[in-house]
Amino acid sequence: MKRSTFLQDHLLGIEHLSVNDIELILETAESFVEISTRDIKKVPALKGKTVVNLFFEDSTRTRSSFEIAAKRLSADLINFNAPSSSLTKGESLKDTVLTLEAMNPHIIVLRHPSSGAAKYLTTFARSSIVNAGDGFHEHPTQALLDALTIKQKFKTLRGLKISIVGDILHSRVARSNILLHQKLGNKISLIGPPSLVPVEFEEMGTKIYYDIREGIKGSDIVMMLRVQKERGARNYFPSIREYRKFFEINRDIFSYAKNSAILMHPGPLNRDVEIETSLADSDKSVILQQVTNGIAVRMAVLYLLKGEIDEDVD
Amino acid sequence: MKRSTFLQDHLLGIEHLSVNDIELILETAESFVEISTRDIKKVPALKGKTVVNLFFEDSTRTRSSFEIAAKRLSADLINFNAPSSSLTKGESLKDTVLTLEAMNPHIIVLRHPSSGAAKYLTTFARSSIVNAGDGFHEHPTQALLDALTIKQKFKTLRGLKISIVGDILHSRVARSNILLHQKLGNKISLIGPPSLVPVEFEEMGTKIYYDIREGIKGSDIVMMLRVQKERGARNYFPSIREYRKFFEINRDIFSYAKNSAILMHPGPLNRDVEIETSLADSDKSVILQQVTNGIAVRMAVLYLLKGEIDEDVD
Amino acid sequence: MKRSTFLQDHLLGIEHLSVNDIELILETAESFVEISTRDIKKVPALKGKTVVNLFFEDSTRTRSSFEIAAKRLSADLINFNAPSSSLTKGESLKDTVLTLEAMNPHIIVLRHPSSGAAKYLTTFARSSIVNAGDGFHEHPTQALLDALTIKQKFKTLRGLKISIVGDILHSRVARSNILLHQKLGNKISLIGPPSLVPVEFEEMGTKIYYDIREGIKGSDIVMMLRVQKERGARNYFPSIREYRKFFEINRDIFSYAKNSAILMHPGPLNRDVEIETSLADSDKSVILQQVTNGIAVRMAVLYLLKGEIDEDVD
Repeated sequence: MKRSTFLQDHLLGIEHLSVNDIELILETAESFVEISTRDIKKVPALKGKTVVNLFFEDSTRTRSSFEIAAKRLSADLINFNAPSSSLTKGESLKDTVLTLEAMNPHIIVLRHPSSGAAKYLTTFARSSIVNAGDGFHEHPTQALLDALTIKQKFKTLRGLKISIVGDILHSRVARSNILLHQKLGNKISLIGPPSLVPVEFEEMGTKIYYDIREGIKGSDIVMMLRVQKERGARNYFPSIREYRKFFEINRDIFSYAKNSAILMHPGPLNRDVEIETSLADSDKSVILQQVTNGIAVRMAVLYLLKGEIDEDVD
Repeated sequence: MKRSTFLQDHLLGIEHLSVNDIELILETAESFVEISTRDIKKVPALKGKTVVNLFFEDSTRTRSSFEIAAKRLSADLINFNAPSSSLTKGESLKDTVLTLEAMNPHIIVLRHPSSGAAKYLTTFARSSIVNAGDGFHEHPTQALLDALTIKQKFKTLRGLKISIVGDILHSRVARSNILLHQKLGNKISLIGPPSLVPVEFEEMGTKIYYDIREGIKGSDIVMMLRVQKERGARNYFPSIREYRKFFEINRDIFSYAKNSAILMHPGPLNRDVEIETSLADSDKSVILQQVTNGIAVRMAVLYLLKGEIDEDVD
Repeated sequence: MKRSTFLQDHLLGIEHLSVNDIELILETAESFVEISTRDIKKVPALKGKTVVNLFFEDSTRTRSSFEIAAKRLSADLINFNAPSSSLTKGESLKDTVLTLEAMNPHIIVLRHPSSGAAKYLTTFARSSIVNAGDGFHEHPTQALLDALTIKQKFKTLRGLKISIVGDILHSRVARSNILLHQKLGNKISLIGPPSLVPVEFEEMGTKIYYDIREGIKGSDIVMMLRVQKERGARNYFPSIREYRKFFEINRDIFSYAKNSAILMHPGPLNRDVEIETSLADSDKSVILQQVTNGIAVRMAVLYLLKGEIDEDVD
């Protein structure tokens, strides 16, 4: 594993990555996938380094994924309980982060409800910042773990058709995936109700469909987005029942995609809302493989930002 | 420490253990008791292994006991905040566990309010499952740490009389202890109000008493159960005052047991509800020794499930 | 690093430290400051030792500072979630600590709302107790990290004038700093409204001022205290607006101190309540250096209490 070609100090979004960067992260992640299948899953690449999870939104799975990734690299991981410490005491994000930085961590993994929060940190922080989701903006490690999963299935990341179904407007997962697959030159269909898939997205070079069958026709990858009740998406469609009628995917609808197509979801899945259960549990679904790849991709990102070169497994 | 004779993949309950299994766990725990008295308490037996605490009920002491046990074996421990992640987002237990398992942990320690939850996990999970309490069913590490404490005091686990006092009906601690001491051939008395000690328990080979003095007569071990206000036990007796009048133990009542008898409680103790304070603080009580043995027994269980053979202390 | 001259079993307060103890802690901390600037920040001095954070008051920054300090010394750190485990189940502080101690930790770091709680623990506990704030009594590691910051700036800890501004009455930070600088023979001014700076403090050898300009005249160090809304301080002054009018510091007022004076605050800072923002962000402020020194001082304290002698970096 060499990191000579990774020139980024932070991982803020797919927006800032070159195709080379993306490929380097995925190749590095592939080597960590191998480690994760071993009985002893640990490498000393980040020994003595401190990684802080600074989460202003609750997300056990993403937080735990970064925690496991950091520990498998032998880093010290600190869960900094952001809301209870700072929001309730009226401290600004900047002061919270400056205080945290004064403790000399190497990497801060930030989840924050405001779009642009991770980038804002880099204007004053000395640590490497990893964006673990900022408002409606980006969630780059999700798009990267999705890309790793796609690469494992198709042995390539080029010449593919990707359909993304659901609340595109409010989805940082969608946004990061759109940016990634545009850089790789793949075809992208966006599918959802007009209120959640505004035509402005066509300016990003995507095609928009309001009919799910039509949209996923010939797709290699179908990505279903989570219905984010907690982020007020329900103001954008009449009811869950109505949403399901038009945009829940089942085996019949999925058959409009290619025979070899795979079904993805960033989790946690609302069964029988976004995906009908028998399809979710079929071999078309790679949802759990996405979770597994999340560890490897996050190990790769932490390693490329702060890891030591040419360490061996201990 | 050899593990050649431990053939279990999981620890779901005393129900599934042979007498050999129980003896192997206790012998292994005894060797870890010795480590816990050292100044450097660490062994590398689970280095590079990931243990997850998945607790759907709050229990700082049991959670911390498993955390300390895992860390003393050099495992990486992840506290997966179950309620906030899944219950609030409407995810099923199965989906939560499948997601967690996709991160490739070696052992999942589960506490869950539903009886049978741990066993249910083994129908689909690949990790080793350790039951840290499932509803009214079992709490096997508690019965094992109790057994280790008894063995240390009496130098044997046979030919003993054990009295269990309190809410037998709702107690997984009682159930696991009854199963364990039946396997070992010990005499068991169950003592409490008829509403909390139904006659059906006699089918398990125990004797039932509604009078505490009569029940503990000649006992080697008196186990007091916690009055579980939080699990609605108070619907089963008129008041705490009434309960105390008949089932709180004090020095006078305890004298009906053997001279050499010991007093146990799974904690946390309600002083002057289950046990009168001067007795709780006397040398009859082994309550704190039970806590100490909790670490050793949990180390033994984690080690026997996933540890490496013949590792030395580093 | 030698510890032969540190004879304390606990760190309860500055009150119990000799000038030699204080100097030894600060010298040890200075050597850990050097480690914190390295790329690999870890030493094995507490390998195999267990440190428990037992916090009955919420404080992410102090808790995290001890957590990072413990991990940089290679200790296992357990966050024992005190309120949820014991207060809600009606367990006494003594029983909580005795239970925790039965798990054989080496050091318990206690924060508790009751003055004297840390000392109370030493009447029965076998672990080393570190007071991380007890009611209105003491917060010794804060005064020690303040002293380290002062020493770094002035190359001495003698012959200085220190002004402390704000709610002296309810501040354990003020109390620990007063005790420390009295032992070192420094001049101490206390400044605030009469309701928060009772004349009794003059018995401790300090001078009291109700006018901030007069009080800080000629000071080397100006320590601003946090307005503790959560501890009811607002009953002691009419309004935040009124408080600011008389006791908020700005560049103009700060100019009454010496040219070389530094500005300190224990954090988290209420900007434009205690300190006007442009002053807080100026090079007069050493607030973030205080946070950095917090790690080094806490490493020193943990090390002096339980560290191994003459270990090298691994």
